[in-house]
Amino acid sequence: MERITPTKQLQHRVRIAVDAMGGDFAPTNEVQAVLRALEDPLVEIVVVGRTAEITAAFPDHTIPDRVTILHADDVISMADEPSSIVKSRKESSLFKAMDLMREGTVDAVISAGNTGAVMATATMLCGRLPGVSRPTIGSFMPSQRERPTLVVDVGANVDSKPRFLHDFAVMGSVYYSQIVGTDRPTVGLLSVGEEREKGNAVTKETYPLLEQAPINFVGNVEGRDILKGTVDVVVCDGFEGNIVLKFAESVIGFLKFRFKRYAEQSPFHAMLIGAFKPILKRVLSGMDYQEYGGVPLLGINGVVIIGHGSSTPIALENMIRRAVDVVRLDVNGEIKNALQHASSIGTATT
Amino acid sequence: MERITPTKQLQHRVRIAVDAMGGDFAPTNEVQAVLRALEDPLVEIVVVGRTAEITAAFPDHTIPDRVTILHADDVISMADEPSSIVKSRKESSLFKAMDLMREGTVDAVISAGNTGAVMATATMLCGRLPGVSRPTIGSFMPSQRERPTLVVDVGANVDSKPRFLHDFAVMGSVYYSQIVGTDRPTVGLLSVGEEREKGNAVTKETYPLLEQAPINFVGNVEGRDILKGTVDVVVCDGFEGNIVLKFAESVIGFLKFRFKRYAEQSPFHAMLIGAFKPILKRVLSGMDYQEYGGVPLLGINGVVIIGHGSSTPIALENMIRRAVDVVRLDVNGEIKNALQHASSIGTATT
Repeated sequence: MERITPTKQLQHRVRIAVDAMGGDFAPTNEVQAVLRALEDPLVEIVVVGRTAEITAAFPDHTIPDRVTILHADDVISMADEPSSIVKSRKESSLFKAMDLMREGTVDAVISAGNTGAVMATATMLCGRLPGVSRPTIGSFMPSQRERPTLVVDVGANVDSKPRFLHDFAVMGSVYYSQIVGTDRPTVGLLSVGEEREKGNAVTKETYPLLEQAPINFVGNVEGRDILKGTVDVVVCDGFEGNIVLKFAESVIGFLKFRFKRYAEQSPFHAMLIGAFKPILKRVLSGMDYQEYGGVPLLGINGVVIIGHGSSTPIALENMIRRAVDVVRLDVNGEIKNALQHASSIGTATT
Repeated sequence: MERITPTKQLQHRVRIAVDAMGGDFAPTNEVQAVLRALEDPLVEIVVVGRTAEITAAFPDHTIPDRVTILHADDVISMADEPSSIVKSRKESSLFKAMDLMREGTVDAVISAGNTGAVMATATMLCGRLPGVSRPTIGSFMPSQRERPTLVVDVGANVDSKPRFLHDFAVMGSVYYSQIVGTDRPTVGLLSVGEEREKGNAVTKETYPLLEQAPINFVGNVEGRDILKGTVDVVVCDGFEGNIVLKFAESVIGFLKFRFKRYAEQSPFHAMLIGAFKPILKRVLSGMDYQEYGGVPLLGINGVVIIGHGSSTPIALENMIRRAVDVVRLDVNGEIKNALQHASSIGTATT
């Protein structure tokens, strides 16, 4: 799948902080992504991390116009305890990038680092948008339609209360509507049957809240409806969402393994698979999460896009562009409006 | 994937009741399956349902040796309320088949009918094995190894307590060990991270129970580990298990859709896809749930194999053969032993 490009094209200056030390190939991939993202003439980027390493990653060690480097000595690893960052890792690239957003110097932060650490730092430094019970992470997945399915939450929250799921639904709906450009996207509640009485205790309590929410709620959906594209937005607790997302990410590896095993059976099989490879690649495009770039952390008073540690330069570039879109389309303003509306009709107080 | 055939081949007479009216193509597919299953000379089958329709489905309207028909006028539909069957649908093929097992006339029941109705009828008529907190349904899924992954529970129970998950783990482990022929299969707890402190409230409470259970528990696993085959048995609540199973079942449809769309782009593309179809079919084998036949309902005082409504004759035949294996290998005796052991070391009382 190609990058989703919003239909509304608003042009104004956007300032992005890139945590240049987060990914597995930092800062090389991050710098490559910055160079590509500068094609948008109204983007300014603060690259946060170890100055010497970052400078060395730029061609001719030359920092382009519209790029500045903010030095940060410390690097957060995937093993670091998320809650410790704000207290004791103030010299880290992640903390410094997020602090730039807190003080208003940048509009958005992107990081391919430790997801838990990004979430905790964003929440503690920038706080939540008014009316948001819990920030959430949503992820696009491919579907049998022209547009993708957004699954929200995919791991930011476990043991979610019905009120949290309500807020995920509202935020996911706004995000989908703005980024994909769909008016009143359909929203389904992930469950084990379509009937409203099917599900677990939490989904049964959530169902009536979603009926009253300022969204286009169509009822329960099942695991099979994600790839089918039965609805635009699938709402679930982060426990299920994370399991489904990781299962989905493993499908492409499973298929590659199967094709490889077939190819190994004989030289003739190897030739057939070799001949078919380019077609396979095209047919399976969009199933590799990398092409979607990162996932948004929604509900924060700020814009944060989180990527996989193994993000490629293209994935990181897409993360920067996605952050720019979220800022320009004022997704946060829309979320505030929607949740204020929800609050005024009394559903968000449950 | 081919049918999993247990390595231990015990030969003794097994009597199976086939609910001939359960599936979408009943009783034609059921009768076809019965004819194939009779190849095992020690199998006797009671076909339960409308005598005239069943007789008409046999070649030359002739009932083979080792087959008897038990007439039942009533048919349970997919829409029927599971709990109503035992009370008010005693003339149904499902009730009559299950009642044959309760009274000891048959060793096992297979049905491609309403899953909830099969479960409720089996539990109410035959009861649970001693020590079982909740009966469960497990399902094999393909993996990147020679042997499949068993996911248990896949929808029989939602909001499972830790004790239930403990029992699913023990029953799944026994079933895997007996049917796949693996000594001490590895068992993983489905969660959102490998570390023991990752997960939701229920998985965190379940973890120490599984450490003490009479199984080869290796810790938490994630969504990606199912297809990877990181462990033999993946334990989860039926809410997650059902969502993952239905997602997995939708992958093959999604791929078919993608290949079809590619083929529609030009006659040349159509030719390429046409040429590649037989290879695709072989590579994707085992991803279609039908090939696995049905899923076992474990923990019942009896043997029950449940199939999809759309089960083919081959899937139904595999269900009968699976039921025969479960009886011959005394899976229920092994489950009783394992749970008594668990009880005696105090874990099953939590």
